[in-house]
Amino acid sequence: LLDQSRERLVAAHGLKPTIVGVVDSKSAVFSHQGIDTRSLLEAKRSSRGLASLSGSIPSPVNAAELITDTDADCLVQAVPSNLSAPAAAVDQLKAAFVSQKNAVTVTKAPLGVAMSDLIGTAAASRVQFRYSGTVGAGTPFLDLAASLAKSDQIDSVEAILNGTTNFILSSMHDRGMTYAQALAEATKLGYAETDPTNDVDGIDTAVKLVILANHAMNAGRTFSDVKVQGIRSVTAAHVAAAKAAGKAIRLVGRIDARGLRVAPEEVLANGPLDLPGATNAAVFNTTTCGPVVLRGSGAGGPNTATAILRDLVDIWRSTKV
Amino acid sequence: LLDQSRERLVAAHGLKPTIVGVVDSKSAVFSHQGIDTRSLLEAKRSSRGLASLSGSIPSPVNAAELITDTDADCLVQAVPSNLSAPAAAVDQLKAAFVSQKNAVTVTKAPLGVAMSDLIGTAAASRVQFRYSGTVGAGTPFLDLAASLAKSDQIDSVEAILNGTTNFILSSMHDRGMTYAQALAEATKLGYAETDPTNDVDGIDTAVKLVILANHAMNAGRTFSDVKVQGIRSVTAAHVAAAKAAGKAIRLVGRIDARGLRVAPEEVLANGPLDLPGATNAAVFNTTTCGPVVLRGSGAGGPNTATAILRDLVDIWRSTKV
Repeated sequence: LLDQSRERLVAAHGLKPTIVGVVDSKSAVFSHQGIDTRSLLEAKRSSRGLASLSGSIPSPVNAAELITDTDADCLVQAVPSNLSAPAAAVDQLKAAFVSQKNAVTVTKAPLGVAMSDLIGTAAASRVQFRYSGTVGAGTPFLDLAASLAKSDQIDSVEAILNGTTNFILSSMHDRGMTYAQALAEATKLGYAETDPTNDVDGIDTAVKLVILANHAMNAGRTFSDVKVQGIRSVTAAHVAAAKAAGKAIRLVGRIDARGLRVAPEEVLANGPLDLPGATNAAVFNTTTCGPVVLRGSGAGGPNTATAILRDLVDIWRSTKV
Repeated sequence: LLDQSRERLVAAHGLKPTIVGVVDSKSAVFSHQGIDTRSLLEAKRSSRGLASLSGSIPSPVNAAELITDTDADCLVQAVPSNLSAPAAAVDQLKAAFVSQKNAVTVTKAPLGVAMSDLIGTAAASRVQFRYSGTVGAGTPFLDLAASLAKSDQIDSVEAILNGTTNFILSSMHDRGMTYAQALAEATKLGYAETDPTNDVDGIDTAVKLVILANHAMNAGRTFSDVKVQGIRSVTAAHVAAAKAAGKAIRLVGRIDARGLRVAPEEVLANGPLDLPGATNAAVFNTTTCGPVVLRGSGAGGPNTATAILRDLVDIWRSTKV
């Protein structure tokens, strides 16, 4: 995406990003001159990974230390989101901030446990911190929410923010599958991971709700504040009964005066939350403008890459003044 | 809205706006100390209008001259949108720019005929120009489109941007009314103006398309570039035939490689463009993220006021650095 966008980024924003370092779980590579994206992608696809590049730093690597030591302007963090062990991802971001680097992340866990702290650390270091890819991949739910909150008040939000569970529930609804059959198909198609816990237990939706509530509604919440129920106990009979009543069961996340919660709910067929496949949507109920609905694809590498690039453009524009 | 929002504007943005002058078609009033909003609203509702305020400037007033002479930081323009005589509104904005004032407008006509020129004049004077209330009232269609365009490409847009015609067409569809009956009801409810030309002939939608295309897709278009067909010739029989085929007739605006156009079209029932009443919606088809849909109320004074306030916040934040 970076290579495809180079001309447009220069023309529209005067931005010419250079990758000066990459760290993954096994090794790392740094170059002041910039690292060619093509060689980088080839290396990542090869069996030896980054270690196949000349000058690479062999395992074990200490990511936070390497982030501190580089003279890059901005960290882009895209590591697996692990809510039970978020410390390493939090430390990487803090390492960037205290060494005067801006940061973009698409990793949800650090925001799920320490969002206020991270925003505070970035502000104290006078650097920028963006995370628009953590909710809705490329669909700018956070930007829209912030735009609405600037001059109106968001009283409540109801949202479908997890594509995997929406795919499973809509397969059960549309094709009469059992939960197990639909989960198997989601795994086969690559929507669900081998361990689907994060998705089907509502954890992924809950963390996204936390990020949305903190970003646009100043909620100051963490993951432990969310009441979460997943979809493992939804049966074909539940789905059929809802369907017969003109409704559909969906995993809905809610933010309102009662707090944050995630649970399977019956939503109106053809209503704003009756979405096909892996789509995401949010209904923002505002005081003055009433309901505002945003819908778009909420997953996928290329989509998420557009969020990273958008954040880089925003950081560039707000720091070049 | 300004009075209701004062505390929040200070807390969130450190912004304390003061109204230092008001000009309408009949008179004007200026005060360095600021004009109390309550007295202002009372005066506007009274038979003598602004002239009832002490120190007011009597008719005839030259708005552009008064805008040039005041030492305000920002002009807020909310005058009727008149595409056949847009010069006065254009001149007011230019008067603000060349006298080093930022401007917010919710008046579409100047953008429909001279958007590039106005943006260029503002840029040359190093002042800010915002117009988010011209499309979708309080629903931030322009912000969303700009957010998408930052890192992805908007290949095409299909949109319903006029609440009046959507109300008329959905009344014909849902309640079997004729065009004349539905128009009469829209007028009675205050959706349509006494002269409904701008709405029913597709002119309002066309200007909004121009603003959207220029804002997010760098289209460099004016109103005369749009192929426009309105809804006057849509009959109850057309609507009934579409309904029988599982479709609904809607006034759709399109932006794509073929250009900009507005016409009544059959859209899929329960699809993203089958909207109730006076709602607006847009489908942005992007290269990487696929279709992104935004939907919300597209009309009304209070809604439009939130757009003005949002623009003021944006200008404040981008100029206080």
